[in-house]
Amino acid sequence: MKNKNRKMLKVIVSCALCVAAIFSVNSQEAVRPATPPARPAFRMPNIVVSPEVLPDNKVTFRLFSPKATEVSINGDWMTGVGASEPLVRNDTGLWTITVGPLTPEFYGYVFTVNGVRVLDPGNPQIKRDGTRNESILLVPGKESELYAVNNVPHGTLAKIWYNSPVLKLNRRMYVYTPAGYEDGKDEYPVFYLLHGGGGDEDAWTTLGRTCQIMDNLIAQGKAKPMIVVMTNGNPLQAAAPGEAPARPATAAGESMFAMGQGLFEESLVRDVIPYIKSHYRVLANRDNRALAGLSMGGMQTLNLTGKYPALFGYIGVMSMGLVDRSAMGLQPDPEQDAKLEALKNSGYKLYWIGCGVDDFLYNSVINLRNTLDKTSFKYTYRESTGGHTWANWRIYLSEFAPLLFK
Amino acid sequence: MKNKNRKMLKVIVSCALCVAAIFSVNSQEAVRPATPPARPAFRMPNIVVSPEVLPDNKVTFRLFSPKATEVSINGDWMTGVGASEPLVRNDTGLWTITVGPLTPEFYGYVFTVNGVRVLDPGNPQIKRDGTRNESILLVPGKESELYAVNNVPHGTLAKIWYNSPVLKLNRRMYVYTPAGYEDGKDEYPVFYLLHGGGGDEDAWTTLGRTCQIMDNLIAQGKAKPMIVVMTNGNPLQAAAPGEAPARPATAAGESMFAMGQGLFEESLVRDVIPYIKSHYRVLANRDNRALAGLSMGGMQTLNLTGKYPALFGYIGVMSMGLVDRSAMGLQPDPEQDAKLEALKNSGYKLYWIGCGVDDFLYNSVINLRNTLDKTSFKYTYRESTGGHTWANWRIYLSEFAPLLFK
Repeated sequence: MKNKNRKMLKVIVSCALCVAAIFSVNSQEAVRPATPPARPAFRMPNIVVSPEVLPDNKVTFRLFSPKATEVSINGDWMTGVGASEPLVRNDTGLWTITVGPLTPEFYGYVFTVNGVRVLDPGNPQIKRDGTRNESILLVPGKESELYAVNNVPHGTLAKIWYNSPVLKLNRRMYVYTPAGYEDGKDEYPVFYLLHGGGGDEDAWTTLGRTCQIMDNLIAQGKAKPMIVVMTNGNPLQAAAPGEAPARPATAAGESMFAMGQGLFEESLVRDVIPYIKSHYRVLANRDNRALAGLSMGGMQTLNLTGKYPALFGYIGVMSMGLVDRSAMGLQPDPEQDAKLEALKNSGYKLYWIGCGVDDFLYNSVINLRNTLDKTSFKYTYRESTGGHTWANWRIYLSEFAPLLFK
Repeated sequence: MKNKNRKMLKVIVSCALCVAAIFSVNSQEAVRPATPPARPAFRMPNIVVSPEVLPDNKVTFRLFSPKATEVSINGDWMTGVGASEPLVRNDTGLWTITVGPLTPEFYGYVFTVNGVRVLDPGNPQIKRDGTRNESILLVPGKESELYAVNNVPHGTLAKIWYNSPVLKLNRRMYVYTPAGYEDGKDEYPVFYLLHGGGGDEDAWTTLGRTCQIMDNLIAQGKAKPMIVVMTNGNPLQAAAPGEAPARPATAAGESMFAMGQGLFEESLVRDVIPYIKSHYRVLANRDNRALAGLSMGGMQTLNLTGKYPALFGYIGVMSMGLVDRSAMGLQPDPEQDAKLEALKNSGYKLYWIGCGVDDFLYNSVINLRNTLDKTSFKYTYRESTGGHTWANWRIYLSEFAPLLFK
């Protein structure tokens, strides 16, 4: 026993020496301010721990900067555009703030240092919202438990490329297959999930925490195992920035025209759905096909279900309704009522609308509901607090997914 | 025709209005300094373009910060630890520097603003190296053409979870399947590709540009279509930071011990290879199985091929050799010569060693080569300029992959 311990100790010490040697020069590690929770074994002395979630869900942020004269933080928990709070400097140059207690949630935040937007150097975890990156903070607890990576079976996320003859592009999309898919022979229902303007195929998995939400809902028996397909809804874009071949800059008008023509919607029907059907084990019928989208994706959902009333059994419209076309100098869609009538009589299973009371598109949702009410079109309405935010869209996904395919 | 144009113009204007309305408040877009190459349609006035690659491969970086008093840049093209160059402020508070011309390459860079490490706010594209994020710059040209996303068929990258009884973890790995895999019935050779210390399963695809390199090599007919499996080589880590359930902090000794015991290596043999065999269409024999790793992954490659000489037909050891065990207070491995002898006689197809002349492990590679030379062990040696860097590992992958399975 003693010998074994001594041998183990020797191995430990030797390995530690070896690794320390490697890490002292390794370009992956040198000069880097390590983040303790990720790899405590290689923690450097005097590193800055940030963010630190305290037991009462207060959170301390720290930034070391003797030369800065103004440091503030902006986080998703604050209200008001451009809201921020100052950090306070101690005499070593360490800037600190403790906020909260914060409601358990998946937050983004950034520092501003002398007027410059700065990601937390102590925190390797970030998310991209369009062209903007933010540091990530997950405050654990009941409200955020579906967003956490828990000890449950995890699905696979595949980043695949498919040809779109409609858009004349080789394009990227993400496909989530639930745990068990790889090991079985079952066929699965499919949920098409569309992002909003400014986003891309990456949005729902990073900002929307789709993999975590679906893993957790399925493990808890609250949602049926399903395939979730997350496309890129920008008709002229092959993939997220940097992930597609460079192409000539697109004129604003070209992009708008493609959007106005419903080209992405056509592509979903003619390129994406057939691809999924031929490459995955799917239950390829309406009652096993769902569609939801937020904002621009909500408009695409309205367009798609209007044009193809027999395609989707489950429909989710998030933070989008019927916008006032006359305010944009457009005639009302003369076919709108006919389309909604066709959809109403098509035998859909669920038409779900979600919106926050502070959403700038709230009135369009009232407009949609009034229009549906006129013809006794059945739908489920979920009104939340808050506005046009990922906090709401994660909640909507968490509530919509359990209603599917049942 | 005129009518058509007018109609198109109307659609464009209307859509532009609509999208502008959405974007003016949309939380995804508001207040964001947009990056023009990504979505020129939504370009805001007066935004900062950074980085800008000029026709002669000089590169201009810009940062807007009227309040900063010191702004510098550190980039992979600079030599020397901690090298940096100052940006110059104009009277509006815009800081600028033009560097180069730069050799075409996939670079990382960061700004330092009043002593704080800052990712380029004008550039949404970043990469994570362990716990450190950097902004990305791809200077196009011959030397970097394999790293670019080109107009070629793209493989699928799947982030999958598998059970590891050896490590008692549900773990994540990345599997690249080449273009055509999803549409065919063929069986493919498999290349297991290991990262270095401080890295994780994300490293080879983000820092190593594995998907781009493999897509391009395969499209050019230079590499055979193959499956590439990228594991997490840290035996106590289920997945990259933030991607796995939180677990208690690991004592340094525990982590080292697991590493010293070769637990990851055992897991590759007993958990990973069987999983790949049972879940993918693979040519499950030695001549269709390759293994390579860099630094820590190179050591794991040495360990694996020493213990299992009949497992891999193609072996790549990057930036790692035989370290001087006596300097670490360890006895020489009494079985080392026997292991190498067994490997030598095992009928492997390729034993490939790559190292840079400035690598801090260069002497260990000399040691490895001398040891192999003593017994006329056949190997291919590639000596590059530079040191222990991803610039070299991308080159090694670009050169090693074409040699496989031929």
